[in-house]
Amino acid sequence: MVNRQFVLASRPVGMPKESDVRMIETPIPALRDGDVLLRALYLSVDPYMRGRMNAAKSYAPSVEIGELMVGGGVARVVESKNLGYKIDDVVNLQMGWQEYAVSNGEGLRKVDPHAAPVSTALGVLGMPGLTAYFGLLEVCGVNTGETVVVSAAAGAVGSVVGQIAKIKGCRAVGIAGGPEKARYVIEECGFDAALDYKSANDYGAAIKELCPEGIDVYFDNVGGPVTDAVLTNLNVRARIAICGQIAHANDTQPSTGPRMWRHILVARAKVQGFLVFDYAARYASALEQLAQWVRAGQIKYHEDIIEGFENMPRALIGLFRGENLGKRLVKV
Amino acid sequence: MVNRQFVLASRPVGMPKESDVRMIETPIPALRDGDVLLRALYLSVDPYMRGRMNAAKSYAPSVEIGELMVGGGVARVVESKNLGYKIDDVVNLQMGWQEYAVSNGEGLRKVDPHAAPVSTALGVLGMPGLTAYFGLLEVCGVNTGETVVVSAAAGAVGSVVGQIAKIKGCRAVGIAGGPEKARYVIEECGFDAALDYKSANDYGAAIKELCPEGIDVYFDNVGGPVTDAVLTNLNVRARIAICGQIAHANDTQPSTGPRMWRHILVARAKVQGFLVFDYAARYASALEQLAQWVRAGQIKYHEDIIEGFENMPRALIGLFRGENLGKRLVKV
Repeated sequence: MVNRQFVLASRPVGMPKESDVRMIETPIPALRDGDVLLRALYLSVDPYMRGRMNAAKSYAPSVEIGELMVGGGVARVVESKNLGYKIDDVVNLQMGWQEYAVSNGEGLRKVDPHAAPVSTALGVLGMPGLTAYFGLLEVCGVNTGETVVVSAAAGAVGSVVGQIAKIKGCRAVGIAGGPEKARYVIEECGFDAALDYKSANDYGAAIKELCPEGIDVYFDNVGGPVTDAVLTNLNVRARIAICGQIAHANDTQPSTGPRMWRHILVARAKVQGFLVFDYAARYASALEQLAQWVRAGQIKYHEDIIEGFENMPRALIGLFRGENLGKRLVKV
Repeated sequence: MVNRQFVLASRPVGMPKESDVRMIETPIPALRDGDVLLRALYLSVDPYMRGRMNAAKSYAPSVEIGELMVGGGVARVVESKNLGYKIDDVVNLQMGWQEYAVSNGEGLRKVDPHAAPVSTALGVLGMPGLTAYFGLLEVCGVNTGETVVVSAAAGAVGSVVGQIAKIKGCRAVGIAGGPEKARYVIEECGFDAALDYKSANDYGAAIKELCPEGIDVYFDNVGGPVTDAVLTNLNVRARIAICGQIAHANDTQPSTGPRMWRHILVARAKVQGFLVFDYAARYASALEQLAQWVRAGQIKYHEDIIEGFENMPRALIGLFRGENLGKRLVKV
């Protein structure tokens, strides 16, 4: 039995190419006592993976050339020498871009296939959902009646941010690329308004029109000119969570734009960069709450599923073209 | 008896000109019961005054054309119909750019001329000192051993920030314009290091060299390329207080530079714009602490005093040329 893996072949310059990763075949190691053999069901495709392909220092170590590409997955136990796991158990783990993984149980989280589709452990009931939850409720804090703006609003994180904002009695305004995504966040996710930035000429004016009472909270997944425009419309004591900067993921030199600190000063705003991992101790209770909202129909989600392990590279590249609606996954 | 006042004559475009304000002579109104007549001893000259000359929305209302220029002062009671004040009492108040003011006592703070020179009520024991105190200790928070960087380090606020950082056991690094100011913050104020940005070619490299363990706290009075460079050297969980942006005070169009949010994200940093007025309820205890540090010689201060009320306009303009060392005042 052979394992297929994608390893980093070269560090991308700008937009990654399919040839920046390489598929290799490796033998599956024999299990030792305590190990389980896992077969991937779904692999996650996330913007942060692009950062790991760089040599530059970031919040996590780079993937080295020749090393397995990193990423989360949902997998099924196909062999077990661990009393805690039996065959057909489903687990969530950081398994990397591969079809099989051997684990000693460390870092595994069991997924209940009866509670929700197991793929949601990578989306609304996984890291993206948790990111939305802690970013909006802990980093920003929200009060009833406030205006919450979120960029990449049709994405795995953004769509949940807006829906939690609605649950909390806020006005939710999404920014997304294209009319289909704008429609999705309003009609499916229940946002109050959405800006399709691709059809807008003056982002600042468009955002101002959608936020007549100004912006109290901004959850940023994007950066770039969209963020510049949002930050000129802040209310006093606005809170901004910097979660992602996908507009800059493939920058080959520092992006320039208007300096924003005067706006932050005048609004007495608070801006915070955050990583969901800082809240790991509280994942369980947050997941319980998210699951309850999903069961109650208060949070809807969309999965953008690509079939075939071999399609991991183009699935990732497509993220940076904005192809996906909701959480992008590869079904193995 | 006649009062001399400066009123706003025209809204400056870029650097203010002396002709943007106009001196007028007005009669001093008769006192009603409860009023005091005050004669200015010192008038404060602060960067924020430039913002009030603009029509644009900021954190405080604009001065209208023909209106008295705003500002703080220290004044002596020369006539009193208020039982709380007697002749020769010294008070601190927002009196504007004028030689005499009539007050009903509201907003007056008595200054003890035996405790410290009364001019300090506009500097180290006044708004600038309080700004340093709350900005560093409350907005940023500091822990022993952390590296604190402050821009405009030889100014009224910055010089106090670095000295409080030292009292709290931090490494204090100042950024200032010119060798005299750099020398001042090290030799007089006890900073560990200083960058004269005017003689540096690569700010980022220079700051990195002065902060070998990275930057935990940045207190920004300046903005612009200096701030860009600091923000590329942040440690994880860095805290940044945006207090002023004097580099942009006279911008005629939005300043552009590298977008910084990726650095904020990677460092999981917190940036906060703040105004000292938000801490007004706690001024008294903060002033007590500052006065104790000054008496103990742990905080030194320098006053940059210009003689003559008629020199208010050029005293303000000079701030934006970086003429002042420490707190700039006009002695009336």
